[in-house]
Amino acid sequence: MDHSADRTTFKRHSSLSTLVAHFFGILAVILMLIWLLHYREGIEYGSDNPLKVLNVHPFLMYCGFLFLVGQAMMMYKTAYASHQVQKMVHGGLHLIGLVLGIVGICAAFRFHDKLNLKNMVSLHSWIGLTTFILLGLQWLLGAFTFLAPQSSSGTRTRMMPSHVLGGRALLYMGIVAALTGLAQRATMLGQSTNAESRLINFTGLAILLFGVSVDFSVALGRYN
Amino acid sequence: MDHSADRTTFKRHSSLSTLVAHFFGILAVILMLIWLLHYREGIEYGSDNPLKVLNVHPFLMYCGFLFLVGQAMMMYKTAYASHQVQKMVHGGLHLIGLVLGIVGICAAFRFHDKLNLKNMVSLHSWIGLTTFILLGLQWLLGAFTFLAPQSSSGTRTRMMPSHVLGGRALLYMGIVAALTGLAQRATMLGQSTNAESRLINFTGLAILLFGVSVDFSVALGRYN
Ligand code: HEM
Ligand code: HEM
Repeated sequence: MDHSADRTTFKRHSSLSTLVAHFFGILAVILMLIWLLHYREGIEYGSDNPLKVLNVHPFLMYCGFLFLVGQAMMMYKTAYASHQVQKMVHGGLHLIGLVLGIVGICAAFRFHDKLNLKNMVSLHSWIGLTTFILLGLQWLLGAFTFLAPQSSSGTRTRMMPSHVLGGRALLYMGIVAALTGLAQRATMLGQSTNAESRLINFTGLAILLFGVSVDFSVALGRYN
Repeated sequence: MDHSADRTTFKRHSSLSTLVAHFFGILAVILMLIWLLHYREGIEYGSDNPLKVLNVHPFLMYCGFLFLVGQAMMMYKTAYASHQVQKMVHGGLHLIGLVLGIVGICAAFRFHDKLNLKNMVSLHSWIGLTTFILLGLQWLLGAFTFLAPQSSSGTRTRMMPSHVLGGRALLYMGIVAALTGLAQRATMLGQSTNAESRLINFTGLAILLFGVSVDFSVALGRYN
């Protein structure tokens, strides 16, 4: 079999997946902003209106956290730069995503506290927090393994498959967290075939297709 | 690098992931049965009680459809049999899963019709039906490519990477469908920190970990 032809095909499909990922990723950002700003109360962390505080949560968790985590995964291969710089961009974007995620999770807790609701009750909150903590640990492990100058290249090679597998599982777990959150919020708002409910559904589908195409982009970029 | 040592490690981790997948897969089946039979109304397709009809849906969608789809994915490599038999088991289990899935989806429509509710309104229903239809198409494509005697071995080799990538994306999309369904049902039932809500959350986590460990089992089984 002609392996170099295969390699070219995979690379081309990887670039295509990256493009599709950008399309759905940005589409989801736009749809979510229309939802929160036009149909809902708006986004404000310091507001007295608990719903404005709650809206900070999906905004930061998708447009901040998940979107940047997906970008970071794709950038590792696609950033036009030396390998050292690619690594810094990869780790750096993840870090920014995680920091925005912490603020986003605080917003959900703040909303609950304002209404004296119990925390960590829903399936969504369990999946969300588990995923977030594991991603934080994966980041720390990655920094110690791949960025710290002490670690040997043997260690790095040995750790790479589990870093890739773990990263992929956490990407999909993040998608599950976002979509359970969206499904739950839509159910709380009451279901009707109106424009808002369709907007929420399209936002959810776009987030899902963003996740799938990030997976494809990364996986096809590695076939070589 | 000693590649044969790597191969052995991957195979061992693949077997371990298969074991973990069985654990979480069966745990989720048990937890879901306790939920539907003990806390809820029970499971009955022909019942006059709409809630008994609705309960058929999660039961068949997870314990029938998703569980068998996961088993089918793992079996392709792990069934102790000739390659031809492995392929038949892989395709056959998928087919049984899809058939049970059709009955499960019919149960959800039957529930809506009994209460004169509109169909295909929720985010969950959109994601669920999209995933299900794509899995059906993936099955057909797979049958024509890998089982039909006319297709050449070149075609098969060329189609394998997309079959594997597509299968993985659909596995995770199925997990997303199940968990949005569960999150939505839990929200409909009202959230309280009682035993039932915790049971639902543990069921959801077990389904998620089943999906992740099926992915690991399949991916590590292919590193060779
Ligand atoms: C990966 C992304 C996400 C993570 C890690 C995450 C995490 C969490 C956590 C830990 C809580 C619990 C807060 C508490 O108990 O006080 C929570 C609550 C909430 N989240 Fe998310 N979330 C994510 C995305 C989303 C999205 C996209 C939405 C869409 C609207 C959403 C909607 C909600 C809602 C409505 C609550 C409050 C009710 C509840 O506790 O379930 N989340 N989230
Ligand atoms: C992979 C698995 C699943 C698929 C493909 C799927 C698919 C669907 C579809 C297509 C509908 C719409 C039926 C209609 O509009 O008449 C639906 C409804 C429903 N499903 Fe699922 N489902 C899955 C798993 C689950 C699970 C595990 C639960 C857990 C309780 C669940 C709960 C519900 C509920 C409560 C409804 C009715 C309300 C609604 O339309 O959203 N589903 N499902």
